[in-house]
Amino acid sequence: MALPAPADTGSDPVVSRLAESMRQQLGPDQVITDLTRLRTYECDGITGYRVVPALVVLPETTEQVAAVVTACAEDKIPYVARGAGTGLSGGALPVADGIVIGMARMRSVLGIDLPNQRMTVQPGVTNADVSKAVAAHNLYFAPDPSSQTVCTISGNIAENSGGAHCLKYGFTTNHVYAMTLVLPDGSVVQVGGAGLEGVGPDLRGAVIGSEGTLAIATEITVRLLRTPETVHTLVADFDTAEAAGEAVSGIIAAGIIPAAVEMLDTLAIEACEQAVHAGYSLGAAAALVVELDGPEAECAESFAQVEAICQQAGTTHIRVADDPAERALIWTGRKAAFAAMGRISPDYFVQDGVIPRTRLGEVLGRMQEMADEAGLRVANVFHAGDGNLHPLVLYDSAAPGESERGEHLSTAIAELCVEMGGSITGEHGVGTDKACSMPKMFSEDDLATMLRLRSAFDPDGISNPGKIFPTPRLCGERPGPYRVHPLEAAGVIERM
Amino acid sequence: MALPAPADTGSDPVVSRLAESMRQQLGPDQVITDLTRLRTYECDGITGYRVVPALVVLPETTEQVAAVVTACAEDKIPYVARGAGTGLSGGALPVADGIVIGMARMRSVLGIDLPNQRMTVQPGVTNADVSKAVAAHNLYFAPDPSSQTVCTISGNIAENSGGAHCLKYGFTTNHVYAMTLVLPDGSVVQVGGAGLEGVGPDLRGAVIGSEGTLAIATEITVRLLRTPETVHTLVADFDTAEAAGEAVSGIIAAGIIPAAVEMLDTLAIEACEQAVHAGYSLGAAAALVVELDGPEAECAESFAQVEAICQQAGTTHIRVADDPAERALIWTGRKAAFAAMGRISPDYFVQDGVIPRTRLGEVLGRMQEMADEAGLRVANVFHAGDGNLHPLVLYDSAAPGESERGEHLSTAIAELCVEMGGSITGEHGVGTDKACSMPKMFSEDDLATMLRLRSAFDPDGISNPGKIFPTPRLCGERPGPYRVHPLEAAGVIERM
Repeated sequence: MALPAPADTGSDPVVSRLAESMRQQLGPDQVITDLTRLRTYECDGITGYRVVPALVVLPETTEQVAAVVTACAEDKIPYVARGAGTGLSGGALPVADGIVIGMARMRSVLGIDLPNQRMTVQPGVTNADVSKAVAAHNLYFAPDPSSQTVCTISGNIAENSGGAHCLKYGFTTNHVYAMTLVLPDGSVVQVGGAGLEGVGPDLRGAVIGSEGTLAIATEITVRLLRTPETVHTLVADFDTAEAAGEAVSGIIAAGIIPAAVEMLDTLAIEACEQAVHAGYSLGAAAALVVELDGPEAECAESFAQVEAICQQAGTTHIRVADDPAERALIWTGRKAAFAAMGRISPDYFVQDGVIPRTRLGEVLGRMQEMADEAGLRVANVFHAGDGNLHPLVLYDSAAPGESERGEHLSTAIAELCVEMGGSITGEHGVGTDKACSMPKMFSEDDLATMLRLRSAFDPDGISNPGKIFPTPRLCGERPGPYRVHPLEAAGVIERM
Repeated sequence: MALPAPADTGSDPVVSRLAESMRQQLGPDQVITDLTRLRTYECDGITGYRVVPALVVLPETTEQVAAVVTACAEDKIPYVARGAGTGLSGGALPVADGIVIGMARMRSVLGIDLPNQRMTVQPGVTNADVSKAVAAHNLYFAPDPSSQTVCTISGNIAENSGGAHCLKYGFTTNHVYAMTLVLPDGSVVQVGGAGLEGVGPDLRGAVIGSEGTLAIATEITVRLLRTPETVHTLVADFDTAEAAGEAVSGIIAAGIIPAAVEMLDTLAIEACEQAVHAGYSLGAAAALVVELDGPEAECAESFAQVEAICQQAGTTHIRVADDPAERALIWTGRKAAFAAMGRISPDYFVQDGVIPRTRLGEVLGRMQEMADEAGLRVANVFHAGDGNLHPLVLYDSAAPGESERGEHLSTAIAELCVEMGGSITGEHGVGTDKACSMPKMFSEDDLATMLRLRSAFDPDGISNPGKIFPTPRLCGERPGPYRVHPLEAAGVIERM
């Protein structure tokens, strides 16, 4: 994964002038040019990519963000807005010779409107801190990516983050009412309004999930939900992944909408147990975590149904989390899954694809065959309820050829998801990591339409360039775009 | 409301050539040029605006839609896609000298995928027919505008339609996975995918609600929900609107998410009763319709809670709908409310605004004062759960000056909603009707950003021109844009 070498920072007179101008306009301590400190911005949550930015600026207000962007626009200097840098697709990676606009100092809560259940925050506030600020009032912010204790609202907006509970509660876009945006020409605009039903074209929705290519959100009004009256959680073990898949289908078919349905396979269970000792059953082919929330009367009845469905599907063991501490432990285990892979493998690639829930067994079988062929192991952790897979391709970078084989296998798995009528990404985004897979999913015309939108906001391509869209430089001489549209592949659309 | 006079159809050589070309490419019976038949396309669901198109074309496939749009693009002829024409903001009104692309012949179901609960349809399929096609499998399409027996999916997409049940289930955008689109240059692209979490910028979401200004959807894959196990409905009467408002706040604060919470005031009750005899209590200041759906165990418990909350708020009478027939009757009454106004007034304007739920009493009081000043009556029907008001301004066009006073009052009510921290439209859209109110809600920069998006898709402005965006021709010499941003007005954002 050869990306351009670190810029020789400070040597570019345009950047030096910009740094000086920012020191004067913002404050000397809000501008970083020292190479050692710049290096702390060189990567995000995935390994393998490293790019040192030319300059990091840390604005504190919308006006300061607008000042930085305006200066970048004047000299056509590329920039990337960065939250906590926990992303998993390279979306927040710096651009060589470009500017990082860090959100670390924009951590204020600007207003809380309890009766209407909304809250306005700066973009650097962490996901978990939004919920903490209103926990005493039994309110919370629903999106819950595994990185929620450190990741920021700005990153959640860039990636349209989901999390274990998005099956029931949806993604970030379902929980953001309005935003103040700084556009790539430095202008400041407002999008969205008092409700999720907007007026005119949904610019709010277009920006959420656009991975920093359209605008920087500097004030965000989020929707707060009421904390559910009760939560019930169980872990059911199964002898085969297919049996666990059957249980998932049974739950959905019964009309139950669980707050979360997560699945871990043998390898993932092993890694989680070594890291967290959450009490998952070592050796089980699959562990299903099912959580229901809502009014007690509903949950008690539906929970009994879920247990019965798991029994019918042949569960070998059911563990009910009786108290909040045990529930928290189960989730700590699940949410630590990616990081825990270090316990069973020196290196790993995190994959993120979507398949129709009904093809789970088939995809797991194909994935196993592909892993065997490559001589590698693949651990699986996934949001089973909505078919969002997170295969973890394990490899050893010290073994000759393994990282190349691992990368190839990981990419092949994403493309298998498309073939099966799914998608190359569920919630981690395209970033730099999957830009070259975009033509597998979209025609040239489809991609051109996305670029029209991009160009409408950013004609010079200075806002997070090199992300999402495949370029010859990035993707080399790969075969030209072919395409299986997800709905054709799944047999939903019959072509005329 | 003086819009340009009907075009002298057939006289324009460019249009005549287009008509001839379409007759050859599509078929002679798919092109309408006869003035009498053209007149059936001259208006939509609101009275007062009439524009006869130069030509109506009725394509049957995506390719035929692309052929019409390509021909329009070549000669820069404006066009409007039209579903059933039931819209309430003039969004589907023809453009003088322009083309109407009618969806009446695109009524096929293209595919049903039961296990994954989705269905692909052509745009002319009615909202109710989508649900009918899968009713035997206990599935349905959630958005339910009052016009659902006749309105089409294409119109639902253009307006991002909601309905009585959008409080719990969201809007059309929450129920559309993917679309095939014909863009204003005639190209055909796919947006969206197998899940609601898309890849790259959310073009799907940007198009839904853009009122036909960005693209025409020609194949739509919708999400189907499982029919709830049970439904409970009650009507609670109150002596004052404030007491009814308190009950709504109490229900939401208890953490119950009803499927629907509707409110009717005295005048609306009177009109509905005359039209439908649904058994609403004549003379009550407010009737609250509360519906819960879901698993029986949940509903029974929560329903008892709702009854208790209504009692606490001082309800004078509670009627529980015991069986499906009675429930259907209550909804027939509610959904007939707009049309029923003819029983108590010769003419009326339908308004559609949003306010924060917590300011309901205040807004109703102000609205009454404004109505008294204008010497007119205002009936109120609204989605109380999400603060979406539908004030109906009653007037008599035969009485001198009443229609002008009525129009003025209706506009003033929409603008009152903005002042209160809400919006000029909840679900009916901007269309031609509210284009001139847009500057009350958005700054010039905000509107310019919407226009950027518009221009990216449609640089020549041929796709439904004259809608959404205020123009001097349309809005005359009204004072320049001033602005109260909804979140500032509501005190959520404190300006720095």
